[in-house]
Amino acid sequence: MEMLNNKFITIKTDIEEAPHESMFEIKTQTLPPLDEHDVLVKCLYVSIDPYQINRMKSRSSSQNSVAAASKITPGMTINCLGLGRVVASNHPDYQKNDIVHGTINWAEYTIVKTQDMLKKLDTIEFPLSYYVGIFGFSGLTAYGGFFKICKPKKEDKVFVSAAAGSVGNLVGQYAKLFGCYVVGCAGTKQKVNFLKEKLGFDEAFNYKEETDLNSTLQRYFPDGIDIYFDNVGGEMLEAVVANMNAFGRIAACGVLSGYTNSKKHIALSMVDVVYKRIMIHGFLATDFTSNDFNDFMSVTKDYVRAGKLSVPEDISFGIETIPSAFVGLFRGDNVGKKIVQIAKE
Amino acid sequence: MEMLNNKFITIKTDIEEAPHESMFEIKTQTLPPLDEHDVLVKCLYVSIDPYQINRMKSRSSSQNSVAAASKITPGMTINCLGLGRVVASNHPDYQKNDIVHGTINWAEYTIVKTQDMLKKLDTIEFPLSYYVGIFGFSGLTAYGGFFKICKPKKEDKVFVSAAAGSVGNLVGQYAKLFGCYVVGCAGTKQKVNFLKEKLGFDEAFNYKEETDLNSTLQRYFPDGIDIYFDNVGGEMLEAVVANMNAFGRIAACGVLSGYTNSKKHIALSMVDVVYKRIMIHGFLATDFTSNDFNDFMSVTKDYVRAGKLSVPEDISFGIETIPSAFVGLFRGDNVGKKIVQIAKE
Repeated sequence: MEMLNNKFITIKTDIEEAPHESMFEIKTQTLPPLDEHDVLVKCLYVSIDPYQINRMKSRSSSQNSVAAASKITPGMTINCLGLGRVVASNHPDYQKNDIVHGTINWAEYTIVKTQDMLKKLDTIEFPLSYYVGIFGFSGLTAYGGFFKICKPKKEDKVFVSAAAGSVGNLVGQYAKLFGCYVVGCAGTKQKVNFLKEKLGFDEAFNYKEETDLNSTLQRYFPDGIDIYFDNVGGEMLEAVVANMNAFGRIAACGVLSGYTNSKKHIALSMVDVVYKRIMIHGFLATDFTSNDFNDFMSVTKDYVRAGKLSVPEDISFGIETIPSAFVGLFRGDNVGKKIVQIAKE
Repeated sequence: MEMLNNKFITIKTDIEEAPHESMFEIKTQTLPPLDEHDVLVKCLYVSIDPYQINRMKSRSSSQNSVAAASKITPGMTINCLGLGRVVASNHPDYQKNDIVHGTINWAEYTIVKTQDMLKKLDTIEFPLSYYVGIFGFSGLTAYGGFFKICKPKKEDKVFVSAAAGSVGNLVGQYAKLFGCYVVGCAGTKQKVNFLKEKLGFDEAFNYKEETDLNSTLQRYFPDGIDIYFDNVGGEMLEAVVANMNAFGRIAACGVLSGYTNSKKHIALSMVDVVYKRIMIHGFLATDFTSNDFNDFMSVTKDYVRAGKLSVPEDISFGIETIPSAFVGLFRGDNVGKKIVQIAKE
């Protein structure tokens, strides 16, 4: 096989606070020959996720949690969930031109050495980008977090923050389909309209226009909140705890407000937590069982086939767009799942 | 029946911050004749519990939670868990001289109208005070909170705050008997020694002597904390979250640091909560099922009979000691369960 020049995205140094495009660079490496069992994948779609910021810090408790959250070294490749096409394979299970999804890099090509991180797509029923978003960790996080962690009952009152994001939009849609009352918050008028008009949320509001989140939540939840799917932490979480009903459940999924501001800690009332018997439960999608995963895939595919679930995606094209795509997550640029398409299918 | 003059303890006004003896008074009432089904109880032992402070505030979210936490009105009687002797009864199930435990008042006598709050003691195998503490809500809170909320595994590393208190001392003992490594914290050297020497805690420390709780916990838990039974909230909870292992469980039982300081909120890292998949679960003893209660009673009585559980009690005598007994809870005066004996058995 000829030697391949491979462009990849990396960080110049550790990133401690809000990320900026200038902190990233495109580098070029020459890929080595494939070892036994290696699979060379041409990257087509890569997932752009906020949690990656925690891997870019010099130190974060997140980095000890799971392999997918391990520290990213400046100058080195950055792995993620992605989908690509096999270009060459030394592994009997993978053939040239197979479509595979799993752990690949923010790069043009990836040599995949750990084949349990790679799944072959046997039939192509859905757009390929779905395997990076709704059928990937975003979907599993939404589904598992809502159904397994929050344990919803019909008519529960559900609040979702970052509701126009990759996970939040799906949580709201799952909750509506399940029979809950759903309110989402987001950071622009456009997103708020999108949630209400396109995704069928009962209500949505722009948190940036609210001066007192406590009374905002009282307005949208006159009977209190039963479930909160928390993607942001911070003041919103404090206000939710104040407005929560007895036996309320909070799925702690993300901390957008805290990822880029290490000084920011929440200040919630533990008296409320005790007396309302609130459960706050951090979780990672990687912890769900294969049964949970199969449930998720079967239910979600059925919903998508039936046109009951919208699949909002925000796709930019070209490896060079990765830094701005990623940085944009923290500016709230994306509506729906942020994906970068690196090459034409 | 002759008219009875009844002394009772009340609050003069709502109590918003740290309580002081001067905020309480003894009043005298003339008890009315018994209605149909009323039971007149001479109070022998009453439980003195920190949570009562939340009932004394003008407003607290706690007051909407359960009947036992409803607001206390200045000038009126204050109910609690207690034990007494039936003096007169208009109810067929209760006879004069029956020993009963349940909801009575901080008073010499209580007319009990809701008989489902009253249980008759058929055999007297244990000291009567036990029914106000270890066999009462303190014991149930410790047992249910530890076994049902924290779901311990043998060899789990368990941390208990306010460990010399009515609930904490039992949590530590249950955890040791179950096979866990147990560290407690308390506010005096005497209590620390008591925990280690009398109750068999593996380690204990005086949190008032520590300047950096984070490194203190690192010292006592070099391999991290699996379970935290939280009676205090505040900075200790923040430090625990920082030192917690993956899948750690926190039973949020009490907020001693917050009950008397309404401005005090915790500032914990939600990034830790998410990535370590920490569960923080508020609970009240009143929520446990009757099965849980039966488990608790059977296991606890067996342990007490076998001499495996110590039952530290701190009993003062006389209704007039109730205010100082109660206020003392917040000064950390008591070692073990605080009880006031109102009359001789």
